[in-house]
This record gives sequence, C-alpha cells and structure tokens, in this order.
Amino acid sequence: MTGATGVAKEEDMLYQEREKETERLVAAILASYDAFPDIIRIGKRNHIDRERIIGVIENLRQLLYPGFFDSGNMCEYTKEFTVRDILADVRTTLMIQIERAYRHAEDDGGEAGEDCGAGNGAVHVRAARTTDAFLARLPEVRRMLALDVEASFDGDPASTSRDEIILSYPGIFAITVFRLAHELWELGVPLIPRIMSEYAHSETGIDIHPGAKVGRHFFVDHGTGIVVGETTTIGDNVKIYQGVTLGAHSTKGGRKISGNKRHPDIEDNVTIYSGASILGGDTVIGEGSVIGSNAFITESIPAGSRIGGAMPTLK
Amino acid sequence: MTGATGVAKEEDMLYQEREKETERLVAAILASYDAFPDIIRIGKRNHIDRERIIGVIENLRQLLYPGFFDSGNMCEYTKEFTVRDILADVRTTLMIQIERAYRHAEDDGGEAGEDCGAGNGAVHVRAARTTDAFLARLPEVRRMLALDVEASFDGDPASTSRDEIILSYPGIFAITVFRLAHELWELGVPLIPRIMSEYAHSETGIDIHPGAKVGRHFFVDHGTGIVVGETTTIGDNVKIYQGVTLGAHSTKGGRKISGNKRHPDIEDNVTIYSGASILGGDTVIGEGSVIGSNAFITESIPAGSRIGGAMPTLK
Amino acid sequence: MTGATGVAKEEDMLYQEREKETERLVAAILASYDAFPDIIRIGKRNHIDRERIIGVIENLRQLLYPGFFDSGNMCEYTKEFTVRDILADVRTTLMIQIERAYRHAEDDGGEAGEDCGAGNGAVHVRAARTTDAFLARLPEVRRMLALDVEASFDGDPASTSRDEIILSYPGIFAITVFRLAHELWELGVPLIPRIMSEYAHSETGIDIHPGAKVGRHFFVDHGTGIVVGETTTIGDNVKIYQGVTLGAHSTKGGRKISGNKRHPDIEDNVTIYSGASILGGDTVIGEGSVIGSNAFITESIPAGSRIGGAMPTLK
Repeated sequence: MTGATGVAKEEDMLYQEREKETERLVAAILASYDAFPDIIRIGKRNHIDRERIIGVIENLRQLLYPGFFDSGNMCEYTKEFTVRDILADVRTTLMIQIERAYRHAEDDGGEAGEDCGAGNGAVHVRAARTTDAFLARLPEVRRMLALDVEASFDGDPASTSRDEIILSYPGIFAITVFRLAHELWELGVPLIPRIMSEYAHSETGIDIHPGAKVGRHFFVDHGTGIVVGETTTIGDNVKIYQGVTLGAHSTKGGRKISGNKRHPDIEDNVTIYSGASILGGDTVIGEGSVIGSNAFITESIPAGSRIGGAMPTLK
Repeated sequence: MTGATGVAKEEDMLYQEREKETERLVAAILASYDAFPDIIRIGKRNHIDRERIIGVIENLRQLLYPGFFDSGNMCEYTKEFTVRDILADVRTTLMIQIERAYRHAEDDGGEAGEDCGAGNGAVHVRAARTTDAFLARLPEVRRMLALDVEASFDGDPASTSRDEIILSYPGIFAITVFRLAHELWELGVPLIPRIMSEYAHSETGIDIHPGAKVGRHFFVDHGTGIVVGETTTIGDNVKIYQGVTLGAHSTKGGRKISGNKRHPDIEDNVTIYSGASILGGDTVIGEGSVIGSNAFITESIPAGSRIGGAMPTLK
Repeated sequence: MTGATGVAKEEDMLYQEREKETERLVAAILASYDAFPDIIRIGKRNHIDRERIIGVIENLRQLLYPGFFDSGNMCEYTKEFTVRDILADVRTTLMIQIERAYRHAEDDGGEAGEDCGAGNGAVHVRAARTTDAFLARLPEVRRMLALDVEASFDGDPASTSRDEIILSYPGIFAITVFRLAHELWELGVPLIPRIMSEYAHSETGIDIHPGAKVGRHFFVDHGTGIVVGETTTIGDNVKIYQGVTLGAHSTKGGRKISGNKRHPDIEDNVTIYSGASILGGDTVIGEGSVIGSNAFITESIPAGSRIGGAMPTLK
C-alpha cells in the first residue's frame, strides 16, 4: 500500500466519521424540537416578520418627517405622489403583518382554527380595516410629534435647531415609534406594537411600553435606560431624563397580576431627573413636581413637591 | 343579475370607496405638512444624509485601526494605496455633507439665501477647506486613540489584549467617534458632529456630546447609560463607568441658558464608578478623587476626595 | 493671456497643491502606523471578521428557535434539511474564525510562529474539533433557553405569550447570545466569545461577560444598563432588572488583578431591582434575598434578606 493511498483512506474514514457525527447532531436537535415545543413555530402560516415591521417604521418616518429621511425625493412637485406611494407600500406590508398577528394570537390561545378558506377572508378583512383605521390616525400622530419636537427644542439648551432634533435625537425617535405603536395597541393589534417598541428600545436604550398613555409635549433627554411600564400614565409637558424607571412596585405575583394597574401616574408639568425610580400602580406624582436624580419613590407625592436625590457623603 | 356579477359590483364599489379614502388621507397628510411646517424639509437642497455620515465613520475606523475592520486588504505592499483610497473616498463624501450642513445652518437661521451659482462656489470652497483641515488632524487623533486603547488595556482586568479592545469594546468605539466628532465641532461644522455622536450613542448607549473637552488616556468601562454634556471638561487619565452622568444641575431655563457653562469639570486622575451623577457648571471634581457608585454630586469636591455611594439599609 | 487660460492655470495650481497636501497626509498617516503599532494589524493572516461572527449568531438563532427568525422555510417536511444546512453553514464559518482566533492569540503572546504549512494543519484540526464540540452542545443550550423563556413568561406580567418574548424581548436575545458565547468561552476559544457578547450588548444594552456562570431559569427584565462581570456566579431562578451592576469592588489594581475572583456570587431565587450595584469577589447574596432599586452593596447578605433601595427625601 502506498503512503498516498493510506492518507486517502484515513481522510475517507474521517469524512465518514464526521458524517455520522453530523447525523447524530441533526437527530439530537430535531429531538430537542419535540422535547421543547414551546420555543418552535415550525409549519405555522402566521410568521411575523420583524424586518418588515421595521421597514414600516422607516417608511412612516419618511411620511411623518418629509424630507428628512428619504433620499431627496420630496419636493413640492413630487410630494403628493411620494405620500401616496409610501401609504400604499405601508398599507400592503402592515396589513399582511396584522393579519398574521391576528392568526398568531388565535393559535396561541389554543382556540379552534378557522376554516382555511373562509377564515382567511374574514381575518383578512379585519386586518385591512385595522390598517386603514391606523393610517387614518397619521395626521393626528403628526400633530402630536410636532409638539414633541417643540418640547425637545424648548427643553434642551444643547439643541441648535429642530432639524438637529429630528435628525439625531434618540428621544424623538423613541417617542415617534411609541406614538405609532400606541395607535396599534389601542386598535387591539397583538404582538406588532411590542415588536415596534423593542426595536426603538434596541436603537435608543429607551423602553416605552406601547400600552402607556403619554400626553402632549413630551420630552425625553439622552434617554438611555428609561423604562416606562405598560399601565403608566403621563400628563402634558413632562420631562424625563436617562435611567428613569416608571415601573411596577413589585412583580412578585408574576402572571397573576397581569392586566392590573401596576405602574405610576405622572401628572402634568412634572420633571424627573436621571436615574430616579417611581414604582407602583397607586403612586401619583402630583402636578408640577420635580424629582431629583436617583430618587426612589413608591408612594404618592403631592403637587408641587421637590424630591431630592440620594445625597453624597464625604468620607 | 347573476351572483357573480353582484360580487364583482360590490368589489368595485369597495375599491372605489377605498380609493376615495386614500385620497382623503393623502390630502389630510399634505394639509398636516402645511399645518406643522417645523417638521418638514420638503424641497430643500441641503439634505443631510445620515447613512453617508455613518459610512464616513466606518471608513475612518478602517484608516485609524488599519487591518481590524477591513476585509483583509491592508498589507505592507498595499497599505499606501489603501490609505490614499480611503482618504479620497472620505474627502468626497464628507465635503458634500459639510457643504450641506453649512447651507442648512444658514437656512435655519432665517438669513437671506445666497445667489445659487456664486453661493454654491463660496460655500463649496469653505466646505473643502474644512474637510482638509479635519483630515489633517487624523494623525493626531490616532495618537490620542493609541493612548485611549492603552487606558482600556491598563484599566480593565478582564481585557486579554489590545486587539480585543479595538475589536469589541463599546467604550473605544464611542471614544473614537467622539474624538472625530469633536474635531469637526472645533472646526465649527454644524449638525454633523451631533449626528456622529448620536450614532455612537445608538450603538453603545454612551452619549458623549461632541462639544465636551476630553484629555488623554480616557477609559470608559461597559459604558451603557453614560452621559457627558456639551460643556464638560475631562482631564487626563480619567475613568468612568456605566450609568455615570456629567450633566446640567438644572435645565429649568431651557433655551435661555444655551451657551452657558452648564456641566462639570473633572480634573486629572479621577475615577467615577457606576451610576454616579455629577451636575452643574461650577462643579469641579478635584484631581485624583474617587466617586462611588450612585453618588449624587452638585458641589465641588477637593482634590483627593473619596465620595461614597448610596449605602444599603437592612430592613 | 486670456481670462479663461488664467482660470485654467489657477485651477491647475490648486489641483497640484492639493495633490501635494494629500501626499503629505498619506505620509503622516503611514508614519503614525509606525509610531503607534499597537493599534494596527497590517499584513496579519488572522483577521477576525466581526460580521461573520454576527452571521453565526443569527444562523444559530434560527436553529434554536425554529420558525421564528427564518423567512418561513421551516415546516415539518423541510426541517431536517434546514437544520442540516444551517449546521453546515455555521460549522464552516465558525471553524475559520476559531482558527484565526487561535492564531491571533498565539501572535499576541509574542510566541514564535508555527511553520506555515504544518502549523496550518494542526491549528486547523484543533479549530475543527472545538467547533464540533461547540455544536454538540446546542441541544443542551436549547434546553436551557426553553427554561429562560419560561422564566420571562412567568416573571413578566406584561408578557402576552412565549412567542412575543422570543420575537421581541431584549433579555432573551442577550441570554441566548450569552449561553452560546459561554460555551465557546468554556472551550477556551479566544476573542470570539467577547465579540459575541459585545454584539448583544450593542443590540440590547445588556452586558453579560461570557465568562460568568449563570444557572437555570434566568430572567432579565428591560435590561438596559445591566453589567454582569467575568467572575460572577448566578444561581437558579434569579431575576435582575435594568441598570443592575454585578461588578468588581475596585479595579485599582488594573491588569494585576486579572484572573482573580472580582465579582459577586448570587445564590438561587434572588431578585435584584433596577439600578442596584453589587460589588466584590467576596460578596455573596444569600438564597432568596430581594435587593431594592439603586441599592449599593459591597458585603455579603444572609439568605432571605430584604435590602431597601435609596429612600426619597421631601424637601
């Protein structure tokens, strides 16, 4: 036997051995799919496509702030066509995702599936109506966002123009996505509002649950680490800074307290400085209060209060 | 009338109804553009392209850390050509964006526009000069960054090599973008420095305003939630950890206090642990001080101080 | 001399001047490469490609959560082929990057390079074995992740389904990447685990060092600003919220304390609320303890303790 033949033979054996190893691994992974079926969605026809939902957000941003995020295709003569194009694109994409989200929620609750043909039609029509109801809200969303941009411009001494805010401020991006996601939440769309808000969270570090209710002229500065929980209410002209938590006092109950009012109410004209935590569904921060950095608050505070943060200690 | 014809007729009516609905929505959105003109930039010829500015950052990162972020096209024989190529590419892209930023700032202040032909030339030449002045600073920026990498390597017991730091540490990415953005800030370029720093903020959770002045051998560990305000000064050999705010004591004045010194001075050899907030334009943290986690500081601290963080309470 | 010729001559001179300027800058940057060689990797054959490592994570996510992140190519009839395809793809890509990471670590320590031909073979085989050992752990990783998804579902009253958690929760993304990176860390792979964990950090604001040891049924809520250090141990059923630091008490020693136990031990069934800092390698948080928001802890705490956060002060 020549050396070359020996090497070839050994290589062949190694190859066969690895093939067997691969087959064992494939079988182990498929067995794992059967063993832990809660984290598979194989063969479902209601795949939610996160990338397309992100595409909808980017398209809507072009529509809401015309001329800022497109590639220069917005001018007086073209704006009507551009608006119509974006709307048509968003409508088609969003309608499909909303239909899938409806189907997903129905499967998920374990309810009997609809008949494929007829069901398809009914859910499809419902998704189309919801999509149109959402799109009809865009002028109102834009009115709110104009006030939010104004709040950033008024509130931040470092801002040099409204355009800088729209082009670069993470707070405005997070609020824009929140106001869109909140409209879908109010229309009862499952899953998609949360995927939207977690996308903004990922991009900005600002985590506003789409179920929160937020008033006019809202200002979020810097923003990283902000958490606003599902049942929070926020009045008009509120400012919050980086690292603020508007959270649940305790989540001991876990799923059992789902649906309860768990997060605070922030009244009009309140300012909350960096790192403060305000917890609990009965906690109300009275009108015009100022909450200092790193304060930790679990009880209601009367209107006009000034709450200091943790104090430094020389040692 | 047959059933099929009835369905076709109904579909036709639905289609027509939706067409009308779309036209109403397009009109409402166009009306919203007129109603809230502060958040439109339709028909402006000075579109700032965030994606191209991000491209400039990525290109400059290849130039500053050769061999780390390219696809292997940096070797001894090619490095001169590669450097020349990247410089040419960055120069062209950045010059266009700087020209647009100049035009943007002029529009924004409401000043009379220049004559299109002549104006174009003058602003164009100014943008070219600024771009060249910026590029000429790159060797100095690289000298600073070599020290910053060294500071990360010296300061972090978990680091295993300088390459690991360059390849994976968010702190070094944020400092790299800051040092580039700061050069443009010092040259008086509008908008672009902030777009750069907010890109780094989005990628890392570290928010360093391009106007801050930062000394040599700067170390940012973990970094998420760090805020360094516009008028902050930081000396040499300073270390700051995640969640630290170097902020304004109060922003009550809003736009009225724009331009004032609002953020602290951190002297040489200071270490600031996680979550500490240091606020105010008159606040000076003396040389060699150590500030504990979650400390909240609004007054100056003498050199060599040790400030404890909030203390735990058993209950 | 005509005017046109004069302009052409001036343009020519400007062009020549700029050419010279460019050459000076190219030379200055090349000189900077020689002056600061710690931050170049020119001509190395062990380029680590961060983008490919991110691709491996995305592919493994499709394998671990089948049907969630692919484009609908997972159904009963195709799943076996899809699993085999993804495994083959991940194996090829990861093996190359692991081989480069081995070579990189060897260069980095300044050891004599191996002979190019023979060495190539030996390191290649080692990388292949490590890759296979890693892939063989995937069913076990999937078992752990099923429990982590369960922990998020049990612990978060705002969650509406396990699918929502897998599709949108940053905590689950960070834990998924951590559990993958930790397997590579345990196998002694240099650099790649940290690049993976810093990718998750960038996407989520959650910074879990791949060297940490984390038990079953781990829940991270919101998560922005969380830091879990290299030598941390975490038991079963632990919950941590945004802004929590499990860190080193002091990093004064810098590189000298590298390798020491520097981060705390968190026992089973502990809950740590937002913004708390727990520091030090001797610090043990006893079984079943609850740590309040913004608490600052540097000493061990007995089992069953309740530690309050910083308290608010009316003024």
